[in-house]
Amino acid sequence: MGGSHRVVIVGGGFGGLACAQALKKVPVEVTLIDRRNFHLFQPLLYQVATGDLSPANIASPLRAILRHQKNCRVVLGNVESIDVHEQVVRTAGESFSYDTLVVAAGSTHSYFGHDEWAEFAPGLKTVEDATQIRNRILAAFEVAALETDAERRRAALTFAIIGAGPTGVELAGALSELGHYLLRNDFPGIDPSEMTIVLCEAGKEPLEMYPEPLIKKTREALSRLHVRLMTGGMVTEIHPNHIVVQTGKESFETLKTCNVIWAAGVQASPLGKILAESTGVEQARAGKIPVQHDLSIPGYPNIYVIGDLAAAKSKDGQPLPALAPVAMQQGKYVAGRISKLVHGDPEVTDKPFEYRDRGSMAVIGRYSAVAVVGPKKWQLSGWLAWLAWLFIHLMEITQFRNRLIVLIQWGWTYWTRDRSARLITNREGVDSN
Amino acid sequence: MGGSHRVVIVGGGFGGLACAQALKKVPVEVTLIDRRNFHLFQPLLYQVATGDLSPANIASPLRAILRHQKNCRVVLGNVESIDVHEQVVRTAGESFSYDTLVVAAGSTHSYFGHDEWAEFAPGLKTVEDATQIRNRILAAFEVAALETDAERRRAALTFAIIGAGPTGVELAGALSELGHYLLRNDFPGIDPSEMTIVLCEAGKEPLEMYPEPLIKKTREALSRLHVRLMTGGMVTEIHPNHIVVQTGKESFETLKTCNVIWAAGVQASPLGKILAESTGVEQARAGKIPVQHDLSIPGYPNIYVIGDLAAAKSKDGQPLPALAPVAMQQGKYVAGRISKLVHGDPEVTDKPFEYRDRGSMAVIGRYSAVAVVGPKKWQLSGWLAWLAWLFIHLMEITQFRNRLIVLIQWGWTYWTRDRSARLITNREGVDSN
Repeated sequence: MGGSHRVVIVGGGFGGLACAQALKKVPVEVTLIDRRNFHLFQPLLYQVATGDLSPANIASPLRAILRHQKNCRVVLGNVESIDVHEQVVRTAGESFSYDTLVVAAGSTHSYFGHDEWAEFAPGLKTVEDATQIRNRILAAFEVAALETDAERRRAALTFAIIGAGPTGVELAGALSELGHYLLRNDFPGIDPSEMTIVLCEAGKEPLEMYPEPLIKKTREALSRLHVRLMTGGMVTEIHPNHIVVQTGKESFETLKTCNVIWAAGVQASPLGKILAESTGVEQARAGKIPVQHDLSIPGYPNIYVIGDLAAAKSKDGQPLPALAPVAMQQGKYVAGRISKLVHGDPEVTDKPFEYRDRGSMAVIGRYSAVAVVGPKKWQLSGWLAWLAWLFIHLMEITQFRNRLIVLIQWGWTYWTRDRSARLITNREGVDSN
Repeated sequence: MGGSHRVVIVGGGFGGLACAQALKKVPVEVTLIDRRNFHLFQPLLYQVATGDLSPANIASPLRAILRHQKNCRVVLGNVESIDVHEQVVRTAGESFSYDTLVVAAGSTHSYFGHDEWAEFAPGLKTVEDATQIRNRILAAFEVAALETDAERRRAALTFAIIGAGPTGVELAGALSELGHYLLRNDFPGIDPSEMTIVLCEAGKEPLEMYPEPLIKKTREALSRLHVRLMTGGMVTEIHPNHIVVQTGKESFETLKTCNVIWAAGVQASPLGKILAESTGVEQARAGKIPVQHDLSIPGYPNIYVIGDLAAAKSKDGQPLPALAPVAMQQGKYVAGRISKLVHGDPEVTDKPFEYRDRGSMAVIGRYSAVAVVGPKKWQLSGWLAWLAWLFIHLMEITQFRNRLIVLIQWGWTYWTRDRSARLITNREGVDSN
């Protein structure tokens, strides 16, 4: 393989992994660099935060996934610089030469300039985020169980989720079910009416990208789950024991809460800045990297950006959503281009990337979901959408064993409503008692 | 329940939990205080360290276990003081009055006066210890994969386990299998002969509490697993990249290794000191609390100490081993005494605690174990002992769901040798690259 085409892929998320796997039979040398040794199935991360699943259930070691792919090596490392002239990617200790570079570094939280909020309002992007949120949620009930002051107990049991996109809505639903389960079974001494889950959304609607009838269903499902939805409410302050939400031009509401979870803004991975500086392109909205129709950076036909980091657009000029299917289709598209290039296929420059939207879905508690499916954009809701969600997510989990174990855990949870992974695994909850 | 007998149990390990559960039908008010919100099945903790199991597979929330026990409440808290005159136990924020106190706070690592070793040689007592060790083991292979210097690569792949008791032996076996699996499948570029697992034991034999024929079997099993056994070797220095082992009166051996795991000494929980100071008794060997034949502290007939924290003795004056069955039998015994006391049974002071040794066992890799079983002390080894180990451990895991999931994970691992939970979940491994 000495003289073959070298492809370096940065990031083993949905986009990077799909690209690497699509290159399996292409005569290239692939190096996949990631800061973590595993691929994370992020759509189920909120279930780790609510104790339904363990991290290992939705994370698969990259080396295990790519074991049988002879032309791909996996490197654990943090990319620190990219030299686009020498065509070299550098981590702390190593450097990797490329003929084609694919950057799929994803996104991270954005607190819209209020980085000081991160301490009180953790977001949900990594396994550590999820276990930290799980610890905080479970510790809140323990604190409430010992608290004799009614007002402080209420604040301990008030959960504010900022952002009513898919993550916020799914988390609110799961948290409501966990909370009611805990109050019914583990904390019979606490009056269930003392628990409040508030879902704050600066926009007008939850899941605003969905068609109107499904938004209505979402509102109904949240209401059934006793989630208080505050739309048109922009969070202006976050403190350890309260937040302030702007509800009108001059009106503000103060919410006493010790538990704030951030599900609002995302921004490009810090690698976006490194890439912008090396290539001279200007970062787009939220730090994303503008790409051409073939997903390459203007002026750099051998550097592609895919997934959340790319500011890609649809044919009609709309920005593509930050979803796993977009990233995966982009990864396969770029792999196809590389294949044509190394095979000397003249079509290589012709076909722009086009996102084929097969639908999207969000689950809102037990037996309830909303979904838009297929090219005709059928709308599903309720039990049928929930079944579809279940089936599709199970099938998409990367390894068969994880699929089996998630199925058992879900089956158990939906029959008994019990959750297996209700562990407080750092001392935070105890020491802050 | 206003005026009923109040039992405070400190610690939700094997002893404390058994005591609480045995009090289920006794007309007392039980308060179980633990620093953690879960009961941990410690005998399988080493399998979390080697990525076979997830923490949630072997940890069950205490509130879930005790859910149907109406006379027991669970408190998450760290006991800071005990007032034996007022009969009050205090945590940071609360105080709990008792008529009978049962202290079952367990043990922690002892570095024999070398607390500075803790940083380089983590022990295996908590879920966090186990995931930290898992991170270090997996990161070591990642470091080796990128290391071009042969000597440094060898040091990255040398694992030293200090102490060849059951934990050390079981961990060495599991680590050897994990390592060989990884080298065969995930790191084909590394020569398997570069990995070394050294098991250092200051005493003469591994598993020295076992009968001689089983010790011989243990040596054979370790040798088959390519574990280098250094008996009669006392560790005298531990540094980030090497350790020194005293192998004779004047002879020392330096081992280059970046991975040291401590499985040697334990000492009583810090609560032992608090208890000794409050009661005026003197701590015994390793900080344990001396108890009378009824497990109470001399002069304090209403304070019992059970489990690893108690310096209890058998009828013939031998110290009882620090094993789960001892703690559980002690917990039940104390519950029986409390029951007799509240029922006004005059026999209460008569019968001393007697440990019924039903046997002990240790697994040494796939298909191999040693066991001493039953009152006749039958010796088992090999495949049959391994099956017995499997069956008994599965049956003893606290919740049915965990039993099922552990069974599936084990079945999978033993068929495919693959391990599910090979996640590096902090950045340590990456940043130290």
